[in-house]
Amino acid sequence: MFESILNNVQEKTPLIHCITNYVTVNDVANVLLACGGSPTMADDESDAVEITAICHGLVINIGTLNQRTISAMLKVGKKANELSHPVVLDPVGAGASKLRTDTTFKLLEEVKFSVIRGNISEIKTVAKGSGTTRGVDADASDAVTEENLDEAISFAKELSASLGSIIAITGAIDLVADADKAYIIRNGHQMMAKITGSGCMLTAVIAAYCAANPGKFLDATSAAVCAFGLCGELAYDKVVKNDGGTASYRTYLIDAVSKMDWKTLKEGMKIETR
Amino acid sequence: MFESILNNVQEKTPLIHCITNYVTVNDVANVLLACGGSPTMADDESDAVEITAICHGLVINIGTLNQRTISAMLKVGKKANELSHPVVLDPVGAGASKLRTDTTFKLLEEVKFSVIRGNISEIKTVAKGSGTTRGVDADASDAVTEENLDEAISFAKELSASLGSIIAITGAIDLVADADKAYIIRNGHQMMAKITGSGCMLTAVIAAYCAANPGKFLDATSAAVCAFGLCGELAYDKVVKNDGGTASYRTYLIDAVSKMDWKTLKEGMKIETR
Amino acid sequence: MFESILNNVQEKTPLIHCITNYVTVNDVANVLLACGGSPTMADDESDAVEITAICHGLVINIGTLNQRTISAMLKVGKKANELSHPVVLDPVGAGASKLRTDTTFKLLEEVKFSVIRGNISEIKTVAKGSGTTRGVDADASDAVTEENLDEAISFAKELSASLGSIIAITGAIDLVADADKAYIIRNGHQMMAKITGSGCMLTAVIAAYCAANPGKFLDATSAAVCAFGLCGELAYDKVVKNDGGTASYRTYLIDAVSKMDWKTLKEGMKIETR
Repeated sequence: MFESILNNVQEKTPLIHCITNYVTVNDVANVLLACGGSPTMADDESDAVEITAICHGLVINIGTLNQRTISAMLKVGKKANELSHPVVLDPVGAGASKLRTDTTFKLLEEVKFSVIRGNISEIKTVAKGSGTTRGVDADASDAVTEENLDEAISFAKELSASLGSIIAITGAIDLVADADKAYIIRNGHQMMAKITGSGCMLTAVIAAYCAANPGKFLDATSAAVCAFGLCGELAYDKVVKNDGGTASYRTYLIDAVSKMDWKTLKEGMKIETR
Repeated sequence: MFESILNNVQEKTPLIHCITNYVTVNDVANVLLACGGSPTMADDESDAVEITAICHGLVINIGTLNQRTISAMLKVGKKANELSHPVVLDPVGAGASKLRTDTTFKLLEEVKFSVIRGNISEIKTVAKGSGTTRGVDADASDAVTEENLDEAISFAKELSASLGSIIAITGAIDLVADADKAYIIRNGHQMMAKITGSGCMLTAVIAAYCAANPGKFLDATSAAVCAFGLCGELAYDKVVKNDGGTASYRTYLIDAVSKMDWKTLKEGMKIETR
Repeated sequence: MFESILNNVQEKTPLIHCITNYVTVNDVANVLLACGGSPTMADDESDAVEITAICHGLVINIGTLNQRTISAMLKVGKKANELSHPVVLDPVGAGASKLRTDTTFKLLEEVKFSVIRGNISEIKTVAKGSGTTRGVDADASDAVTEENLDEAISFAKELSASLGSIIAITGAIDLVADADKAYIIRNGHQMMAKITGSGCMLTAVIAAYCAANPGKFLDATSAAVCAFGLCGELAYDKVVKNDGGTASYRTYLIDAVSKMDWKTLKEGMKIETR
């Protein structure tokens, strides 16, 4: 069902502008190239607004935000809205500090986001202005489980209705929802949490998928989440085979993204709707 | 003898806040995850002080310092002191420029460091306000050798007594000392110098080991130095086996960190006390 | 013909100061070590001028420029000129935004560059203040092909004469020219465009080759372009053999740089002069 979505990314080579953190920026750039897109990074506001204008989509990731880049995020987000580019927010560590929480709300106030992707603690902060966090990791007490899944789906749908954004909550079980429909995705592997940047990379892949599939953001986001999660599984198989560790895993994860095709995705995706 | 130290890191998942350089920040984050910890990076002072408060240890690495981040380093260091978190200093390039040397001394004046890790030239700068450097590399004329080892041990012990910090001098021979006791460690491989970030990564691993082992900083630091050096040896074996080069070496090094266990460390560590 | 050039790099270990973008900075540092040089990164002007003084060459890469780093680039460039260090410019995205184009021209006005390396769109911007770009990628309509090769050679020679810099235009076919002579290089592999940082890494390698070979910048630059392109081919062979993807390719590329020797280069280089 996601065949045309996948093909559009690989055929259109969407150019994605990222204002993102410096911890995982290289992985983000490489995963964008791997999935069929192309990255551009610019975070000085006198540069970034123009750069956004020649791109097809925007990622705002608040991972290592500072006063200078926050200002750029706001201006660039508005520009992308003017141009009707998809804009994806990754509220890294929202809830962990006042600056991150305040910046998240300022961004939500001034910029319209097509998609918001985070772990459950970050998304709870987006929804309620609260939520516990363990730094940039989700708090275990927040986790989406089979037991609280229906509740989490309702939460995601309501938040989507309220913000007008696709909500993607990723963790052991992933949820992607608009106001009416939710995809539950069970791809992925726990080793993704043993490398930095899994979340940042996925956010960027979502932006590429959305930019190549205008008007289909729910499906595009879900396809990206499925595909990236499946890559996490394929990378794990390869790590086991080659007796590797976490750094090999990172390499194999991006490798798998660069080799993903519809046949592989169709056979490997674990997705249902509710 | 380091069994409980290693186990504590893997069981407690210490959260380490790093203000570090943007050259090796991704490696630092990945090695923290690999060794059993978890990284958080924040360098804007309005964010970083709060982030430190939810962490268990702090790394200050002056590698690509600027006026904005120096200010954050000072505030965050004091906050970590207030909270009795272990704080580890990596004075990258101290001695190579006035800004780096001055910042090192300003940090030493205002922040109490649990551990200071550097190459011999950087540590000599810390001690004497002088010392030659070759950029971020140690100067060959400073090197710790079998011939000057006793002198280097005395130097490290005296510096530790004077600053109240564990002193870790890494190079072909590694020294870890407090005022009374020094460990001499002969793990490691010269290929570690052919990738960027070996030192930065080790500093972060030391912080994770110290955060998980309060009150045992000398042993925790020594265990980290042994374990990381041994990973350098294991990575070299794998590079030879796979006919790889320096980038494969970097991957295998972090892989080895992610797979380190007590059995491997016990068999491979080359350590004595003086 | 490039034997002594290659050997000089490996024997002299030139120390290269880079003010470069944070997207690919880790790759740049690692490739400098891999090719036989050593990197230092400093971008605060109160640090960077002094750091340049202890180095042997300078890279200015405008990839994620901001007002603070632009100021440092100008001061550091002048200092390197004073010291007669080779200075290499990588005008990333020149033509894509006013800030990048203006900064490129400001740098050209105030700093004497030994070598300017970019894709054809960036170099056209350098030459004419115009040129189309697709973000940080070259525009297909600008591409150097067998059909327009003579024209491109004339363009490169004229630009070199006008600026007094070696001009290196890289793409499917690479050109390296001074006012009188051009090398046409057909090494490389299209997979180099599927990872971030190929261009940034090559720029840094050129700086190392020039720093180790004073007075021979045309040959040093051409040798670097040949060697790095050949590494791109060798990396591709290894990716195919190991069924890897783009992240493995990045690893194998730097691996190949770390293992390059004259025998390999002599057999693999595809170079002619016109």
